[in-house]
Amino acid sequence: MTGRTPAPFTVDDYRARMGRAALAAADAGLAGLLVAPGPDLVWLTGYAPPAATERLTALVLAPGRDPVLVVPALEAPDAALSTGAPALTLRDWTDGKDPYALTAELLTPDGRFGVSDNAWAMHLLGLQKALPGTSYASLTDALPMLRAVKDAAELDLMAAAGAAADATFEDIRKVRFAGRRESEVAADLARLLREHGHEQVDFTIVASGPNGANPHHEIGDRVIGHGDMVVLDFGGLKDGYGSDTSRTVHVGEPTEEERRVHDIVREAQQAGFAAVRPGAACQDVDRAARAVIEDAGHGPHFIHRTGHGIGVTTHEPPYMIEGEERELVPGMCFSVEPGIYLPGRFGVRIEDIVTVTEDGGRRLNDTTREMVIVD
Amino acid sequence: MTGRTPAPFTVDDYRARMGRAALAAADAGLAGLLVAPGPDLVWLTGYAPPAATERLTALVLAPGRDPVLVVPALEAPDAALSTGAPALTLRDWTDGKDPYALTAELLTPDGRFGVSDNAWAMHLLGLQKALPGTSYASLTDALPMLRAVKDAAELDLMAAAGAAADATFEDIRKVRFAGRRESEVAADLARLLREHGHEQVDFTIVASGPNGANPHHEIGDRVIGHGDMVVLDFGGLKDGYGSDTSRTVHVGEPTEEERRVHDIVREAQQAGFAAVRPGAACQDVDRAARAVIEDAGHGPHFIHRTGHGIGVTTHEPPYMIEGEERELVPGMCFSVEPGIYLPGRFGVRIEDIVTVTEDGGRRLNDTTREMVIVD
Repeated sequence: MTGRTPAPFTVDDYRARMGRAALAAADAGLAGLLVAPGPDLVWLTGYAPPAATERLTALVLAPGRDPVLVVPALEAPDAALSTGAPALTLRDWTDGKDPYALTAELLTPDGRFGVSDNAWAMHLLGLQKALPGTSYASLTDALPMLRAVKDAAELDLMAAAGAAADATFEDIRKVRFAGRRESEVAADLARLLREHGHEQVDFTIVASGPNGANPHHEIGDRVIGHGDMVVLDFGGLKDGYGSDTSRTVHVGEPTEEERRVHDIVREAQQAGFAAVRPGAACQDVDRAARAVIEDAGHGPHFIHRTGHGIGVTTHEPPYMIEGEERELVPGMCFSVEPGIYLPGRFGVRIEDIVTVTEDGGRRLNDTTREMVIVD
Repeated sequence: MTGRTPAPFTVDDYRARMGRAALAAADAGLAGLLVAPGPDLVWLTGYAPPAATERLTALVLAPGRDPVLVVPALEAPDAALSTGAPALTLRDWTDGKDPYALTAELLTPDGRFGVSDNAWAMHLLGLQKALPGTSYASLTDALPMLRAVKDAAELDLMAAAGAAADATFEDIRKVRFAGRRESEVAADLARLLREHGHEQVDFTIVASGPNGANPHHEIGDRVIGHGDMVVLDFGGLKDGYGSDTSRTVHVGEPTEEERRVHDIVREAQQAGFAAVRPGAACQDVDRAARAVIEDAGHGPHFIHRTGHGIGVTTHEPPYMIEGEERELVPGMCFSVEPGIYLPGRFGVRIEDIVTVTEDGGRRLNDTTREMVIVD
């Protein structure tokens, strides 16, 4: 999830993000935020410890107070080298000391705090024990849109990641599919993503024939055959920002039915994209895409939400799902990825990353959405 | 942390582990365990979802009840293929449903539960909200020794991982150090670990000259020079079980002082190893190693605990640290890794993985602990 990647951000960018986050916390009635290693910490400070561990690292943000990073003494030298370090105070702790007591000193004893979704339960429990009067909400619940709106520099990075994923698709459509295992094509995808600049590959789904009917099928040993539909869904991080795109290709000529199902999904994807504009609700994107599939009689075969946000992770709020009434805002980036899954037979999914503009949406993926025939 | 790796375990092994865990929970006064994706889940079921996400996956273990795995519908087909699946009931949930309500039905409303250390805070908060009468303790607090004692098949895998790390050291000592960047030698280490069978590389620390004085320095662009001490600390997972070893090498002939410091650390490591026997306390290992370093006047320069457990992760309980009074039991595996760090100058660390036997300890690393001179 993390990694030291080049990013065009300065200490002022990180200082501004931390300031905005503290204000957003106050607006949401929170006494502050507790930020764990992972995407929130990278986005707020540029600091990416090699792994989240049993040793507590936590950024404490509170309105009107300077940011403090609690960090194991062993890791303090590396933390001090991060781009955002000059904008915060490091408080290190050594093995054998109680890091929760140290962190508790920075918290209002009866405050309610937002905490990173992926903070370890053991650390949350440690804080709850150290300060029983505090209460907590996950950042997805309390401040779901904290990282959702991208600034211009971030949008440039998102577009570059999308272009790299597109270049990967243009290369993969030329490789041999028939007679090779899904795992071999998946390895090609991973190699190509790296060749096109990704430092991290998060997923390379290759789901052929009946495997395509399982939306989260990853990679198997199935040998791809002539006549197979193949769902390709791949992405990762390039320069710290995410890509995620899906295309469904066919080995040789498709049947009439396969072509019809692919057309429905393509129209659904277009309808979802067309619903993107400032002020629309997230659920409107889901409804627009889903309506096309339901009208075609395949409602029961579209068994997941239409999309998810993307940024310094490949999976984050906002979610394009029924019941999500939050409004789209220019700068948000998310997937639009309807699918139809016919159990035991085949599946089709088409996915682009889309960003909200002042007057609609802009796709960050731009390869053909027509069915591509592969060998 | 996770991955699909070959393991010699059967559904009966997983059934037995889940049964023992439920009994251990009852002995500890817990109503059950909530197990998140990651090392606990792999160890208990063999199931390793590709990533922990905002979609709840949780294994619920309770004494006298059949294990239940709550899993997103999208991932249920993959979960059903895991080795341990026949020993548990899958309960899947679809996007838009409340997975916490579903999980709450499986819990005693006023029970206290152990929860995986690395469970996401957002999931713990979801359960706390769904069942306000429940309380929780991290597995490290509640059942720290759950995975600590390895069975014979696990010990074979640990020994094989250690042997692969040793083979890596025998190869790396032959490469060129002087004039190359730390990052280049680190890349060699990663490649060698993979060549010797690791499917996952967790860390390849190369800390030369003054960088060696930062115990958690990872990899830098520093060019290694003639006369440098270089701390090498590397490990990962081979067939799902961990390696972690450190040796400190010297480019060309060391000074008298460098040799003396290395000798002290070597004696400390030997003293820590010699303290390993059933019934000794974890802190006894730390004390034995630390005493050697303190007697030599370098106490303030040994700034971390002496060791940590290892198994399906490279970092887990038990910890060899002052205050840890739990007793060593045959089958436990952990590092013994004292070090001396002279700020701005150099550092030395020597580390072996050790397992507790009926009458003492057995090293799982076996390369020379004398100072190796490299080019």
